[in-house]
Amino acid sequence: MKLKIKNLSFVTGGPFVSVMNHHDADDRDIKPGDRILIRKNGKKIISVVDISDDGRIKKGEIGLFDEVLNYLNTEKGDVDVTLAKRLKSLGFIRKKLEGKRLSKKELFEIVRDINANNLNEVELTYFVSACYSQGLNMREIEDLTDAIVRSGSRLNLRRDIIVDKHCSGGISGNRTTMIVVPIIASLGIIIPKTSSRAISSPAGTSDTMEALASVSFDVKEIKRIVQKTNGCMVWGGAVDLASADDKMIKVRHPLSLDPEGLLLASIMAKKKAVGATHILIDIPYGRGSKFNTKKQAFSLKKKFLEISNVLGIEMKVVLTDGRQPVGNGIGPNLEAKDVLKVLMGDGPDDLRDKAIFMSTEILKMLHIKNARKIVIDCLNSGVAYNKMKEIIKAQRGDIFLPEQLEVGRFKKNIYSTRKGRVKELNNKNVSKVARVAGAPLDKTAGLYLYKKLNDTVKSGDLLFTVYSSSSKRLDYALDIIKERNPYVIG
Amino acid sequence: MKLKIKNLSFVTGGPFVSVMNHHDADDRDIKPGDRILIRKNGKKIISVVDISDDGRIKKGEIGLFDEVLNYLNTEKGDVDVTLAKRLKSLGFIRKKLEGKRLSKKELFEIVRDINANNLNEVELTYFVSACYSQGLNMREIEDLTDAIVRSGSRLNLRRDIIVDKHCSGGISGNRTTMIVVPIIASLGIIIPKTSSRAISSPAGTSDTMEALASVSFDVKEIKRIVQKTNGCMVWGGAVDLASADDKMIKVRHPLSLDPEGLLLASIMAKKKAVGATHILIDIPYGRGSKFNTKKQAFSLKKKFLEISNVLGIEMKVVLTDGRQPVGNGIGPNLEAKDVLKVLMGDGPDDLRDKAIFMSTEILKMLHIKNARKIVIDCLNSGVAYNKMKEIIKAQRGDIFLPEQLEVGRFKKNIYSTRKGRVKELNNKNVSKVARVAGAPLDKTAGLYLYKKLNDTVKSGDLLFTVYSSSSKRLDYALDIIKERNPYVIG
Repeated sequence: MKLKIKNLSFVTGGPFVSVMNHHDADDRDIKPGDRILIRKNGKKIISVVDISDDGRIKKGEIGLFDEVLNYLNTEKGDVDVTLAKRLKSLGFIRKKLEGKRLSKKELFEIVRDINANNLNEVELTYFVSACYSQGLNMREIEDLTDAIVRSGSRLNLRRDIIVDKHCSGGISGNRTTMIVVPIIASLGIIIPKTSSRAISSPAGTSDTMEALASVSFDVKEIKRIVQKTNGCMVWGGAVDLASADDKMIKVRHPLSLDPEGLLLASIMAKKKAVGATHILIDIPYGRGSKFNTKKQAFSLKKKFLEISNVLGIEMKVVLTDGRQPVGNGIGPNLEAKDVLKVLMGDGPDDLRDKAIFMSTEILKMLHIKNARKIVIDCLNSGVAYNKMKEIIKAQRGDIFLPEQLEVGRFKKNIYSTRKGRVKELNNKNVSKVARVAGAPLDKTAGLYLYKKLNDTVKSGDLLFTVYSSSSKRLDYALDIIKERNPYVIG
Repeated sequence: MKLKIKNLSFVTGGPFVSVMNHHDADDRDIKPGDRILIRKNGKKIISVVDISDDGRIKKGEIGLFDEVLNYLNTEKGDVDVTLAKRLKSLGFIRKKLEGKRLSKKELFEIVRDINANNLNEVELTYFVSACYSQGLNMREIEDLTDAIVRSGSRLNLRRDIIVDKHCSGGISGNRTTMIVVPIIASLGIIIPKTSSRAISSPAGTSDTMEALASVSFDVKEIKRIVQKTNGCMVWGGAVDLASADDKMIKVRHPLSLDPEGLLLASIMAKKKAVGATHILIDIPYGRGSKFNTKKQAFSLKKKFLEISNVLGIEMKVVLTDGRQPVGNGIGPNLEAKDVLKVLMGDGPDDLRDKAIFMSTEILKMLHIKNARKIVIDCLNSGVAYNKMKEIIKAQRGDIFLPEQLEVGRFKKNIYSTRKGRVKELNNKNVSKVARVAGAPLDKTAGLYLYKKLNDTVKSGDLLFTVYSSSSKRLDYALDIIKERNPYVIG
């Protein structure tokens, strides 16, 4: 049927939606949520139908949102509309909800439809909740990983050994990647690291690296950077490596769901897309982190080892102390300062120690002897720092010194009102305060921590400073501190 | 924070949504999908946040859709916005997804939030999929039924015996309700029947009854009709009996999910809301119906008996032949013709027989002797027909004779091209053809079936006629017949 475009001048921000008049829909027995195929000038797109019976969309019209108009490269005129076939994926999602196993072909079909924006939010939610409530077995995770890898581009570095690392997250200030990558790369080992931006933390590795250099590159540029420097620290979201994965993240937010099978497939797909042969996984655990108990962390470790075995990738998993932030700075610039200081032979001990430990573990995986000594030499000699400068330059950056990094011009010192020891330094509260102060978008916002767990504290001692580039946001952050002080002194 | 309303002049048709500028959202660490409390002039509403970074919503503005503006009874000016607390329901939904049991309090909280429009589509989908994939036990179904009943109004007829009936559906033309209700009501027994409109069938009982009278009444009016005539046949969707239920139906469509626990709670809630003490359930089964095998139908029967036992309601469940449509007319007016004919002592035998059987079963539940004889007398004597006229009048109708009902002015006879027997008369195909011809919105559209299962057919015999008020829709229907002929002759 021919319908006249009514430009709704609005972005849905999600799946492709179009609005039909109820008479037109009835004529063709089209119901809300059905899919139609819209064609114009040789282009075609599948969109989900919403039905209007309030007169906004007249008979013979079709209301289109910006996404569909952009895709069709049009703004007015007629389009040809037919009912699209029922997506096979929907049957497969239903099958998973019923607790059945999905075949490789079925998982590929689902990922294909996710990637093509064929599934709407409700349908995507059904898939995520099916994975959450029914689980995926190792074979399914393997196939899903494959499907996600094939849904995007790959790096194709053609090297025998490619190292990668991953942290299961949840710990503020944990910027070991930015020290480990230059150490490993300076030893002639390839380590092409893609990272995420913060979702609920004050800074992801990409946000912090961005304080020093660009992080958004396409596959060709990333290849060039790695070929030049052996390493990179780029934002995974800017390239379409494992792109289907990013679309699933949105519907996971409302219930904060992390279906384990999806999570594993998502991480492994990103590693496979860069061609990783050796992966070090860091799982911090302890009160205030993602995993409260060692048992929970251990259970994830087992799953990681299982899936890497199935995929034929060498892996080592370390469980680390996640009870408090790592380093002193929290927020992009404050963290980047810590990182540069460590690389220059200074900086917070805990961050330095963790980076040395992680780098040593990587060398051990590669059967390199005297691993720890090599790593420490590499740091102390300035070789790692020089490599970092090379990478920063390759990523079009020009910040090499801690002093070049600004901190928020509005600040407030928070002092202890009692004496004792730091009994708790809660990651979640640190994160909340730093975010409300403006991190990660405001690069200069965040916290600087002067005391860590078990430190003795006198009444009146400085505990931490909050920074922001906005006095209003600093006030908001101070409000939050009243409710949720990151420090418990007892 | 104070934000200026930007009227988006658009209906979302679903949950309450508002759009914030990304700077404002960042200031308060608000993420897409978070909930905000919007206040103006003493009214307040919780809405889900979408975030705009394309300049459409400027800093200091908030984009509001029609639903929110209507609720706040405003179109411009400032609103006060604060981050709303995380809904407890979300934690409960997550719990269910993890396979845990929900308490009465938790189910009540979820239903309360559904009813208050506090859950968005994604969240509602998580609830429906949790119920589907993890199931509900009898205690949960009981509590959910209670929660849904309390979420809406109740009929409060204050009578010792109130009869109700329900059909699990899927069979075209199955309009026994419109014969059973007048029979039972004419015997002095209260039967306040609420029905649905068609979702995927050519006509629901409400659509067919609407061919004769109004079906949309509020609780007070329904009470008046029942007090006057002992019965009614009204549309459940027009009253807020068990209203939370209707909101769940929308997200079930994309995957055609019928989570059994939700389904049972939804049906029982509607029966409880009218105060039913005795319920007859009809479960048609067989090829082309909702339940292919007797085993499946029997499994649902068991669940129905269990839940009615828990709720202390008398119930009888009958399994009936669902392999083909009941009666000859399909579509509102064509079905209503059949119904009036049966009540006047004529009409299709199968419809008459099924109505007699169902009415007899109801009388037997009430321990009335010679039940079948009483029912047949009631039909043959015209007493049931007179009662039907009374009910039609009470529901402001004025159609009492089959001849008063129009059929589509465009029609096409479909003849058999071979000889043999009717081996299949597929419900789904009958339904599809009738819908495309215009049913249920076009009351005059539909099919008239001249042959039923196992009838002998000669080449050239008339199988059925398709009716429509639109020549275009008749053409569409004929296209469908080419792909999916309802008749298989062999």
